[in-house]
Amino acid sequence: MKNEKNTTDFKALFLGSKSENLNLFKELINNSYEDAAGWRKNFHSQDREIITSFDKKTKEFIDTQSKMEEVLNNLSSLLRGGSIPWHSPRYLGHMNSETLMPGIIAYFEAMFYNGNNVAYESSPATSKMESEVGIDFCRMLGYDPKKAWGHICADGSIANYEGLWYARNFKSLPYAIKKAFPNLVKGKTDWELNNMSVDDILKLLENNEDKWDAIKSHSVRHDSENINKLGKVFVPKTKHYSWLKAADILGIGTNNVIPIDVDKNFRMDITKLESEIQKCIDSKTPIMAVISVVGTTEEGMFDHVDKVIEIRKKIAKQNAWFYYHIDAAYGGYTRSIFLDEQNNFIPFKDLKDKYEEYGIFQNKINWPSQDVYNTFAAMGESDSITIDPHKMGYSPYSAGGIAIRDIRMRNAISYFATYVFDTKINIPDLLGAYILEGSKAGATAAAVWTNHQVVPLNISGHGKLIGHSIEGAFNFYNHLIETKKYKINEVIVNVHLLTNPDFNMVDFVFNIEGNTSLIKMNELNQKIYEETSFVEGDTYINTVLLSHTNFSNEEYGEAPLDLLNRSKVEAKDFEKEGVNILRSSILSPWLYDKDISKYFNDIFDKSIQEKLMEIIK
Amino acid sequence: MKNEKNTTDFKALFLGSKSENLNLFKELINNSYEDAAGWRKNFHSQDREIITSFDKKTKEFIDTQSKMEEVLNNLSSLLRGGSIPWHSPRYLGHMNSETLMPGIIAYFEAMFYNGNNVAYESSPATSKMESEVGIDFCRMLGYDPKKAWGHICADGSIANYEGLWYARNFKSLPYAIKKAFPNLVKGKTDWELNNMSVDDILKLLENNEDKWDAIKSHSVRHDSENINKLGKVFVPKTKHYSWLKAADILGIGTNNVIPIDVDKNFRMDITKLESEIQKCIDSKTPIMAVISVVGTTEEGMFDHVDKVIEIRKKIAKQNAWFYYHIDAAYGGYTRSIFLDEQNNFIPFKDLKDKYEEYGIFQNKINWPSQDVYNTFAAMGESDSITIDPHKMGYSPYSAGGIAIRDIRMRNAISYFATYVFDTKINIPDLLGAYILEGSKAGATAAAVWTNHQVVPLNISGHGKLIGHSIEGAFNFYNHLIETKKYKINEVIVNVHLLTNPDFNMVDFVFNIEGNTSLIKMNELNQKIYEETSFVEGDTYINTVLLSHTNFSNEEYGEAPLDLLNRSKVEAKDFEKEGVNILRSSILSPWLYDKDISKYFNDIFDKSIQEKLMEIIK
Repeated sequence: MKNEKNTTDFKALFLGSKSENLNLFKELINNSYEDAAGWRKNFHSQDREIITSFDKKTKEFIDTQSKMEEVLNNLSSLLRGGSIPWHSPRYLGHMNSETLMPGIIAYFEAMFYNGNNVAYESSPATSKMESEVGIDFCRMLGYDPKKAWGHICADGSIANYEGLWYARNFKSLPYAIKKAFPNLVKGKTDWELNNMSVDDILKLLENNEDKWDAIKSHSVRHDSENINKLGKVFVPKTKHYSWLKAADILGIGTNNVIPIDVDKNFRMDITKLESEIQKCIDSKTPIMAVISVVGTTEEGMFDHVDKVIEIRKKIAKQNAWFYYHIDAAYGGYTRSIFLDEQNNFIPFKDLKDKYEEYGIFQNKINWPSQDVYNTFAAMGESDSITIDPHKMGYSPYSAGGIAIRDIRMRNAISYFATYVFDTKINIPDLLGAYILEGSKAGATAAAVWTNHQVVPLNISGHGKLIGHSIEGAFNFYNHLIETKKYKINEVIVNVHLLTNPDFNMVDFVFNIEGNTSLIKMNELNQKIYEETSFVEGDTYINTVLLSHTNFSNEEYGEAPLDLLNRSKVEAKDFEKEGVNILRSSILSPWLYDKDISKYFNDIFDKSIQEKLMEIIK
Repeated sequence: MKNEKNTTDFKALFLGSKSENLNLFKELINNSYEDAAGWRKNFHSQDREIITSFDKKTKEFIDTQSKMEEVLNNLSSLLRGGSIPWHSPRYLGHMNSETLMPGIIAYFEAMFYNGNNVAYESSPATSKMESEVGIDFCRMLGYDPKKAWGHICADGSIANYEGLWYARNFKSLPYAIKKAFPNLVKGKTDWELNNMSVDDILKLLENNEDKWDAIKSHSVRHDSENINKLGKVFVPKTKHYSWLKAADILGIGTNNVIPIDVDKNFRMDITKLESEIQKCIDSKTPIMAVISVVGTTEEGMFDHVDKVIEIRKKIAKQNAWFYYHIDAAYGGYTRSIFLDEQNNFIPFKDLKDKYEEYGIFQNKINWPSQDVYNTFAAMGESDSITIDPHKMGYSPYSAGGIAIRDIRMRNAISYFATYVFDTKINIPDLLGAYILEGSKAGATAAAVWTNHQVVPLNISGHGKLIGHSIEGAFNFYNHLIETKKYKINEVIVNVHLLTNPDFNMVDFVFNIEGNTSLIKMNELNQKIYEETSFVEGDTYINTVLLSHTNFSNEEYGEAPLDLLNRSKVEAKDFEKEGVNILRSSILSPWLYDKDISKYFNDIFDKSIQEKLMEIIK
């Protein structure tokens, strides 16, 4: 299908799985260090050189240089021998792929200047870039970029901690107000205090800017006596383990974390969530926060954000409220596929036409479902969102991120002076006072900023890359559905798929026809995983690479039973063994193409056929 | 002075303040991407190319490429226009300098492979490197590398949080043991439980590996009810602000943080610390931890570590114990200057000879003092240490780090299964389960590892670079002492130095002779700072660059009064205004050389003379 619009061509933006763009890359790298070297040389051009030609000929210099060269040669061998070929379409495992070339070059170039974005003074250029990236996050995620704020984090775990830190400190602020300035909350019951929303609190303080610091000194930050009574945190059972770490680290205690069952689609079961929340309301048990996962790390599914928002609206009638954080570390960038060139959210009815117009999909695929659409439409009503550029942003590690709906929220966690209503301070003098981390590489901001500048975060740019990834996943998914079975002599091995994917992850199991033992099925999939993964030795021997996971009863409840049923194995060992799953995140920018996809699907089949032959004999 | 030994020549290891090593650098960069590109291309060499020559000639490709080039050109302008010239010896401000060339190249090269050290499976090569870097940290910092453990963190703040996380969780473990297996601690009083040392706890659990998980599920991680009663945290007033953030984030509460006055040398006042600790013991108030700062960020001073160890030994007789974390984010690498080529700590009496033998200092400088030596000698007796490769390790941002004395300590914070006594697991399958962060760049590990491989962390290597930095600082310090005064027509401006530096930081103030007003002195130094720093516009206009700080009475107590006294200003405004200080970290690898130092000191004088002329007129 020919694009109608002249949009981003991602073939120009990756080095390529066969280094096809090496010449272009070389030229750009060359420019970058020539520029950086010239800048150094010309800072007070008259200053004397320190390393002279004489110096360079001494034995010590030459020996040290030789040693450096030897170490770098060794580094190169070790990297080549012990790295994972994300770049190849043969890689069908974790959420990895080669990353955008402009981001790599930008990171490299910025390393020469080595800015530290902890403080503006240490990094004027890259601090501005981080501020712009924060605005990009907000706009892409559905927050009003004039009111919201965002920044880069070391990773998604740190962003999640920061989100829960906001939730915890906000829940404690009303009590702190009561202690410091009781008149401001006169007549409010404890329940009402516990259920004041972020907006309520910000509004209350709107004309009391001078009181923030005094209030904060009465909050949980200062006195943690009632920290374990600030409320329950609801997470889906498909949560990332960082949420348990978060509850430990933030002193909330994991006993306040309530895991909610997931439904057959591995999305948080909304009915169960609502009923648990209602139980809390009925028993006047405080609720701190609800966490939705947009892009579960093991299944690639999207929780129903819109339905959580509905619950929040419903319970408002009972004077109840919870902080709402979305962990979209994995799925956040997906929202770019729903934005038109003016960054407006595209009406559902127009999506197909727009996708055709912008050449988002090469072939007709049944995506998105109404559920997925509704989730992305509602994200802007949350309080904060985790988003990782180093996942679907195709930026190099380490680049996580967070956005908050209202820049004034920063005062709940910030250090030093409070600038409540000066929403212009997008670039604080000391960013470290407003975030969890301290020192942070300016180069990360340069990399993400450069990617965002080159690739618009809507359907004319990044949305297309998201589309490539999703179409690649559907090509693989459809192939597995069509293949269904591998014949190994007289043995037939069937493939069973976990879900109809919401996104770009395909989970599946192999089972020998006639086998009803879960233990045997688990063994088979474990062996296949071992044959399709890299631990040590030569990376090059892997013909395809998959990742794997185990769904335990304890963590997943009954959600996996449907798969067991379809795989025709008995469930009796499930409680003890869980079920081993093969897991393919398709981030490759190339598998959207029917020909390329067919080429690599054939390789996959041949490879699996061989491995099954080996395993079964 | 001619070196006797053939040691590392740092002139071969930096690009150079005038890009003197550009040709060498180019060659190494070229090798690195050729290798990486070849690796990609030859992973299943027969696989088809995806980006074809035809693709490269389409309008979309060419347009996208042009856009990328334009953005990268813009990036280059912005970086050059808004970065700080750390590379120049004219830069005398924050703890920054140009970074080691091998680390830059390694980071760049590893970015192609984009390993994620959160899991071994995602980064076999760089996970091993991180494990080796962890061992390097332990060895350098005085822990037994066979028993200890370390890893890279996003930054020093994160490492500090992790240190306090250990302290907090360890303090709660004895109570958890009592809840889960009361027999194990039968007869122990609450006070005894609160004062069980890390070693006591590990020993107790030595034969109860299977009980760890049950115990942890009764610890503060799970139930935070008594989190604010686990004890006080003693920090020097010179602490980094991340310690207050740490107490907030970890749910300990800043009201449990007790800032201890510093002495005239801006080191934690040991007498006061001891008396506060005794007060706690007398009143049976639990003590969680003592934090020492080895390399205070504003003064570059080293707390007395040996004396804190002494206190800990003393109070053991009263059945009291505290967790001891050293924040050596800044100063940690300094310990390399005390290690001989076999990495043994050099006896004080042999230091001078060794330094002469290895050419550590060009001229005789009076360093280290016995105090400084004793501090570094005692570090191995602490429980955990923060150390930042991106500071005195001369590695690019972001690279912090932490080391713990006993690898088994990890079980106090780790997730998933516990491997108590398998001390061989230096490279866990899932590092993210043993540390605060999640995803983390393998490239960071590659950079730090490469620097460590090229530069031994003892006097034959990194110690020499530390020596260069210290000697550079002393050259500047001595120059200021010798200069003492600038004459601006009839006005005389004196320089007053804060302390005799422990390390490589020189703090000082200017004051007009005859002025006794602190407010006026503060104004003068503020103006000088404004004239010697970069906010926006053209970096190139700065002739010298300084950083600044303000010492408030609230934060510093009476420690700055000695400086005010020597500066001959009245102290009456100190409580309200604090004192503005100019602050120079001398990390430049070049100012150790007498000639170079004189060259740049002349530039400094000329520059200050001009600026004072401007300000005073």
